[in-house]
Amino acid sequence: MSAESTAAASAVEAFDAVDVIRTKRDGGAVPEDALRWMIDAYTREYVADSQMAAFAMAVLLNGMERDEIRVMTDAMIASGERMSFAGLGKRTVDKHSTGGVGDKITLPLAPLVAAFGVAVPQLSGRGLGHTGGTLDKLESIPGWRAALSNDEMFAQLQDVGAVICAAGSGLAPADKRLYALRDVTGTVEAIPLIASSIMSKKIAEGTESLVLDVKFGSGAFMKDVDKARELARTMVALGADSGVATTALLTDMNAPLGLAIGNANEVRESVEVLAGGGPADVVELTVALAREMLALAGQPDADVEAALADGRAMDVWRRMIQAQGGDPDAALPTPRETHTVTAPTAGVLSRLEALPFGIAAWRLGAGRARAQDPVIHAAGIDLHVKPGDEVAAGQPLFTLLADDGARFDRALDALHGAWEIDDDAPPAGPLVLERITA
Amino acid sequence: MSAESTAAASAVEAFDAVDVIRTKRDGGAVPEDALRWMIDAYTREYVADSQMAAFAMAVLLNGMERDEIRVMTDAMIASGERMSFAGLGKRTVDKHSTGGVGDKITLPLAPLVAAFGVAVPQLSGRGLGHTGGTLDKLESIPGWRAALSNDEMFAQLQDVGAVICAAGSGLAPADKRLYALRDVTGTVEAIPLIASSIMSKKIAEGTESLVLDVKFGSGAFMKDVDKARELARTMVALGADSGVATTALLTDMNAPLGLAIGNANEVRESVEVLAGGGPADVVELTVALAREMLALAGQPDADVEAALADGRAMDVWRRMIQAQGGDPDAALPTPRETHTVTAPTAGVLSRLEALPFGIAAWRLGAGRARAQDPVIHAAGIDLHVKPGDEVAAGQPLFTLLADDGARFDRALDALHGAWEIDDDAPPAGPLVLERITA
Repeated sequence: MSAESTAAASAVEAFDAVDVIRTKRDGGAVPEDALRWMIDAYTREYVADSQMAAFAMAVLLNGMERDEIRVMTDAMIASGERMSFAGLGKRTVDKHSTGGVGDKITLPLAPLVAAFGVAVPQLSGRGLGHTGGTLDKLESIPGWRAALSNDEMFAQLQDVGAVICAAGSGLAPADKRLYALRDVTGTVEAIPLIASSIMSKKIAEGTESLVLDVKFGSGAFMKDVDKARELARTMVALGADSGVATTALLTDMNAPLGLAIGNANEVRESVEVLAGGGPADVVELTVALAREMLALAGQPDADVEAALADGRAMDVWRRMIQAQGGDPDAALPTPRETHTVTAPTAGVLSRLEALPFGIAAWRLGAGRARAQDPVIHAAGIDLHVKPGDEVAAGQPLFTLLADDGARFDRALDALHGAWEIDDDAPPAGPLVLERITA
Repeated sequence: MSAESTAAASAVEAFDAVDVIRTKRDGGAVPEDALRWMIDAYTREYVADSQMAAFAMAVLLNGMERDEIRVMTDAMIASGERMSFAGLGKRTVDKHSTGGVGDKITLPLAPLVAAFGVAVPQLSGRGLGHTGGTLDKLESIPGWRAALSNDEMFAQLQDVGAVICAAGSGLAPADKRLYALRDVTGTVEAIPLIASSIMSKKIAEGTESLVLDVKFGSGAFMKDVDKARELARTMVALGADSGVATTALLTDMNAPLGLAIGNANEVRESVEVLAGGGPADVVELTVALAREMLALAGQPDADVEAALADGRAMDVWRRMIQAQGGDPDAALPTPRETHTVTAPTAGVLSRLEALPFGIAAWRLGAGRARAQDPVIHAAGIDLHVKPGDEVAAGQPLFTLLADDGARFDRALDALHGAWEIDDDAPPAGPLVLERITA
């Protein structure tokens, strides 16, 4: 920004970015009008990336008051389109997970909740790094498409009740620009900015209520349970302040969820859950989140397990997939090559860590390193045992899945020291550690 | 920076800017090789302004260790040209002031010290904002020119001993870019960055030793004496660590220095001091700084006052001005219009604050708002009394000097509440508060 342009533009700008930065730098709260201006001016590219980066670092180190977070989030929402499901005639409830390894819960959850007559508008993303994206997983299903117009989405919510589709670029564009900036300036970890980034998109999407799955542990974005709790509390407060009833569950992401890590294999596991089976932890978390969502939608006593057992949730799943062009009966992609690791000794699987298994699945092709890369839908890892299980010597522990066997070596590198067989296993902590409400 | 360019360049870059930023953000010390890379990569424009802005904010809030400051400064010096006066056959000593209102000390000081056979290579700047620039003041003298080639400078140091000229753009170019960035990102006030900015230019300039005049008070960059002391200590340590013997004086800038604030009038006052007269505070500070400079140059017992009294300093001044094309006998510009403010009541001038008088002089045309603006050499303020002086009702207090009488109103606005007449004045603090050495 040249001295001339600053001087010329200052004449019409109501605030000065350096004043806003200084206020936060010195530990103060930025007044509402100044904070709204800052986000708006950043969207207009009057405030430079360098100025927003300095501001983001000051927020990371000095924090933000509850009301500042509300205003910042509202300003991000105001930077773009705001959807509304008011004309739908149904209660709406959405769920957001902070992401983990083997986290396919959205897939069984959305149809399960919709089976109770509630609309579930689940705008999702693609994966980047070691945590998979819900859309990548569903794209394993032949014919299924993620992109829907707002009209198509509205019609599907009316008709089927559940929709899982790509978020349009019109929601909170300021957040998109700010997120990309935070990624290169070491300011991703600022809790007020994480909270407003997640919540601005969810609130702009127009849901009435929201359940958050905030994960802690080695495979989670927040390794530390206290940081995860702080993020959960911040988002629950922000939801309340923004008129969206919000509940959060604090859940364990030290081990992968379920037995499947990847894309097609996670869809298969989700279908097992919808068929009344599936791994106990995936069922437990799906049921816990469904109960919270239904409670927010006015059905606190809904018999969630029954809807899994009697096929109602499966029925919604099939209709949801079909409505988006997918064939729920089509064969899912299978890997060209597999590599199975067996137990070197007998004992108990005492540890199997989410992060290295997530990284290994990523290296096998299940995830992407750059936003424009494709994922390989058949790639990933199938676990055969979970922490706490007894194993015999030579018993298969897990199988790597890939389209190209040359990928196995780097995946196995990531798994060095990632699992352990011992005489016994430490007692397992609860999957759902805490429930946080406003 | 696109994902492609990052990925492509990462292959050849030894470090990652986000890692460096995170280290400082989390309160750690950045390893020497990583910090050198960061400055070098910023100079090459591989590290983006947004990344350096986040880093600067983390430095401002988390500080830097002594060794990090040394490395950062050395990396800034390495970004450009480094001068040397090794072949001069004289001791060299330089002085830097953090800037104040009426601070013309460099003008009498450089010839005074040079009168003892010491070389004083005084690379100076122009003013921006309310503190004046040494070069602007000297340009009041008809014919005088600030721009010298390195050869001209060397020859003048050999022949005359004192030179006051413009710093070339080749010294520490990384500092120039970083300073402009700090100015728009609220990170000017980071002490490690101020210290490395000042010292990188002084060390690159090739002086053997350096005296710092670090000011505190309303007219200073550092209002707070503790911050000023911290800056002084940081720079003295940095000088020692970089092989430049450095002493700092911590001096009071609550009231203007001397009676002249402006350009031509400050030259006139400087010539009075060189003629053995001049205001007591200007003489006191000139003598104190000259003693420190001469002590560093191996002449701790030099009779500084004698060189002012017997015309030796004046002789060097005249030769210094002539060597740069100036006529020391030429009439200096005088203002077209003046406006004198008189005492409304009798009493004692209990307060006269530097900052508003600096701003008023700036509004009269003595300073510039933008780097490309000219200054008006005759504009400024002449004080007739100083804090502590008794005044009679109707006695002139100060006179505003301008080329255009329309400027008086806005200047007088700045002076509302800037001075006070009372029954008595609070006891004056010392002009030189502390001496700080390594």
